[in-house]
Amino acid sequence: MSPHLAPSSRSQVPPFAVMDILARVDALRAQGRDVVSLCAGEPSGGAPAAVSARAAEIHASGRALTYTPALGTAELRGAIADHYRRWYGLGVDPGRVAVTTGSSGAFVLSFLAAFEVGDRVALARPGYPAYRNILTALGCDVVELDAGPDTRYQPTPAMLDAAASERGPLAGVVLASPANPTGTMVSREELAAIADWCAANGARLISDEIYHGITYGPGLERAASMGVCAWEVSREAVVISSFSKYWGMTGWRLGWALLPEELVGPVDALAGNVALCPPAPSQLAAVEAFSPESYAQADAWVADYARTRQTLLDALPSLGWGPAAPADGAFYLYAELGDQLARFGDSREYARQLLESEGVALVPGTDFDSVHGGRAVRLSFAAGQAAVEEAIARILRFQGA
Amino acid sequence: MSPHLAPSSRSQVPPFAVMDILARVDALRAQGRDVVSLCAGEPSGGAPAAVSARAAEIHASGRALTYTPALGTAELRGAIADHYRRWYGLGVDPGRVAVTTGSSGAFVLSFLAAFEVGDRVALARPGYPAYRNILTALGCDVVELDAGPDTRYQPTPAMLDAAASERGPLAGVVLASPANPTGTMVSREELAAIADWCAANGARLISDEIYHGITYGPGLERAASMGVCAWEVSREAVVISSFSKYWGMTGWRLGWALLPEELVGPVDALAGNVALCPPAPSQLAAVEAFSPESYAQADAWVADYARTRQTLLDALPSLGWGPAAPADGAFYLYAELGDQLARFGDSREYARQLLESEGVALVPGTDFDSVHGGRAVRLSFAAGQAAVEEAIARILRFQGA
Repeated sequence: MSPHLAPSSRSQVPPFAVMDILARVDALRAQGRDVVSLCAGEPSGGAPAAVSARAAEIHASGRALTYTPALGTAELRGAIADHYRRWYGLGVDPGRVAVTTGSSGAFVLSFLAAFEVGDRVALARPGYPAYRNILTALGCDVVELDAGPDTRYQPTPAMLDAAASERGPLAGVVLASPANPTGTMVSREELAAIADWCAANGARLISDEIYHGITYGPGLERAASMGVCAWEVSREAVVISSFSKYWGMTGWRLGWALLPEELVGPVDALAGNVALCPPAPSQLAAVEAFSPESYAQADAWVADYARTRQTLLDALPSLGWGPAAPADGAFYLYAELGDQLARFGDSREYARQLLESEGVALVPGTDFDSVHGGRAVRLSFAAGQAAVEEAIARILRFQGA
Repeated sequence: MSPHLAPSSRSQVPPFAVMDILARVDALRAQGRDVVSLCAGEPSGGAPAAVSARAAEIHASGRALTYTPALGTAELRGAIADHYRRWYGLGVDPGRVAVTTGSSGAFVLSFLAAFEVGDRVALARPGYPAYRNILTALGCDVVELDAGPDTRYQPTPAMLDAAASERGPLAGVVLASPANPTGTMVSREELAAIADWCAANGARLISDEIYHGITYGPGLERAASMGVCAWEVSREAVVISSFSKYWGMTGWRLGWALLPEELVGPVDALAGNVALCPPAPSQLAAVEAFSPESYAQADAWVADYARTRQTLLDALPSLGWGPAAPADGAFYLYAELGDQLARFGDSREYARQLLESEGVALVPGTDFDSVHGGRAVRLSFAAGQAAVEEAIARILRFQGA
C-alpha cells in the first residue's frame, strides 16, 4: 500500500464489542455448544404472510423490476401516508413521504440534507451507535448528551441548553422513542418540549420512530399509543420509520422519512444520486404490510414480545441488577449490573465470561455508551420466550457460581 | 420554516434536465400521444429467469429475511469472486468482495473509506453526474477533466498531470469504462497508464465497471473482452460493479466492490452503520445470475443491443450529427448535434422541440457536461430495436421539417 493510500480518518469507526461476541457465538456453535443469543436487534419470524405472498407473486410473474422514482412508488408513498391517519389520526401529504433503503437510508439522506459539514448534532448517550458513526462519516460534530436512569436515558431541554452553552449552537437533535438500547419512550409532553427547544434554537429535530407499534403498557397490555409521532407536535421535524421492526422485515431494507416541505426537493435530489431508488421488489410487496391481516399478524408478535418482556421484568429482582429502565417499547432491556460489577469489573468482562461458561450472549453497554456503558448490558427479548427463560436460568446459575 | 432550518448547501444538487423531460413524457402520454423515449439507462427485460424463479421460491417459502453480514452473504461473495475467474481469469479472495446496495452503495462506501472531507477527486467530463454529486455531498472537491472526442471522452495521464498542477494533489481518480454517457472504453494500456499515474501520485483509482459484459466489437460481433478489469493492472484500485446492467436487475439494488486489503475493514465498519446490509432477498436470488443459463440469457440481450447499436450507427450519416464516439460498450450513443446546433441553439432546446413536435425523448448532454454538454445528446438504445427505428424516422422528419 502506498503511504498516501491509507483509509480516511472518517472511516475509523469504533469497533463494536458485539461483533467479537457474535463471532465467538458462531465458533462455539461450530464446536457443538448450545448457545442462547439475546444479541440480535431484530425479530426472527419474518414478514407478514401477505407481504411474502405478494413478493412471491411479483417474482413468479417475471415482470421487470426497474428503477422506481427516487422517493419511491406513488402507491407505497400513499399507503404510508394512510398509515399515519390510521395510527395517529394525522393527515400526511404523500408528497412528503420519502421511501428509503431502510431507516439507514433515511438517516443518511436526512443528515445530508439538513446538516452541513461541521454542524453540531446532539443525541443521547447511551444510544444507537450508527447515529454517531453516520454523522461523523458525513463530517458532522456529534454532541453526546449524558442521559442516565434519572431521565430514563432520554435527553431533556436542560441537557440541550447545557450542551449548547458548552459546545456552541446545535444544528440538530436526534431523538429515539422507543430508544435502542433502552426501550424507553418520551411522553407527548416531553417530545413537545424537545421540539419547542429545537424551534426556539434553530435546530432540526430528527425523530427515530422505527420501534413504533412495539409498545407496552402496564402488565401484559400494549399501550393505547403506538408511540407519539413527532409530527403530532411539530411539522418541522423529520420523522424516520421502517418496515424492519414492527413488521419484521429487516433484510428487506425498506424504511421511510416524513419530510418538512423544504427538505423534499433536497432529499429527492440526493436520493437520486446516492441511492437511485429503494429496492423495487420490497416496495411493491410492502403495500401489503398495511392490510388488516398484516397489522393483526404484527400485533400478535408484539403480544409475544410483551409476554417475554414480563418474564424478564419478573426475573430482574432475582438477578440483582440495577438500575434498569423498564422498556416502554422495542424489545430490549438495558440494565446496569449492580453487584455483579464488583465481581467482574465491567460489562465486557461479564459478557465474555457469561458466554464462555454458560453460553449466553448479551451485548455489553460499551457499544451504546463509551462512558458509562461498562456498567450495563443490553438483552434483546426478540429472541423469544423460550430463549429468554433459558437465558435467565443460565444467568442465575452463572451469578450463583 | 425557521431561517435556521434551510437545507444544507451540500444538498443543493444541480437539477437534471432529464427530470423535466420525463415529466413531460408522462404528460404527453397522459394526453394520448405516442412517445418514444430513449432516455432510460436501464434494460427493460427484467432479471434472468433463474434469478426471478429463485426469488419467487424464497418468498413462497415464507422464510425470515433478516439482516445479512454488512458485506453480504458468504455464498454471494464467493460467487462474485468466482465470476472474476470465469470472465477475467483473475483470482479474487471472497474476503475482498463487498456486496453493496447497488453500485450506488459501493460508490458511497468507497468514497467515504478512501477520501477525507476536502480531498480532491478527478473524473472525466462528460460523465455520470452522480459521481460528482455524491463526492460533493460527502465534502470532497471534484476536479472535472475536460475530455472530448479527441480522447474519446476518456481521461489521460496528461490531463491528470495538468489537473494536479493547477488544483493540487489528487487523492483519487474515478474512471468508467464503458462510460456513461459515451459508451467509450479504455484499452488495457490506457487503463494501466491511469493506474500507474495513480500509484506514482498517491491517488486511489476507483474503476466503475458496471457496464462490463455489454461490449461491442466491429460489426455485430461482441468484443472478446468483457472489458478490462482494473485489478488486471492494479490491486490498489477499487473495482465497482453491479447486477443492474448486464443482468438487467436495476430495481433489485445490488452491486459490489472489490477492495484493496486496507479498505476492507473500513468499508465493513461503514457499511454496518450506513446501510446495515444490502437487500437480503436480492442477495439470496442473485447467486443464480452466475448460472450458465443466466449468462446465456444476458448474452442474448447484449446481442440485441449490438443489433440496435448498428442500426443507430448506420443512421448517423443521414442524421448529420457529429462528432460522436461510437459506443464500445454500454447502451448509449453520445453525439454532438453538428449542423442542428445552429438551428436550435443548444441540445436542451433541440430535445425540447423534438419531444414536442415528434414525441421523441432524448437526454441533453448538459446533464453530463455542464460546459460542452449543450452541443450533445445521449440516446439509450436499451429501449430496443423497434423504438430506435421509430425514433430515427421521427428525428429525420423533425430535422427535415
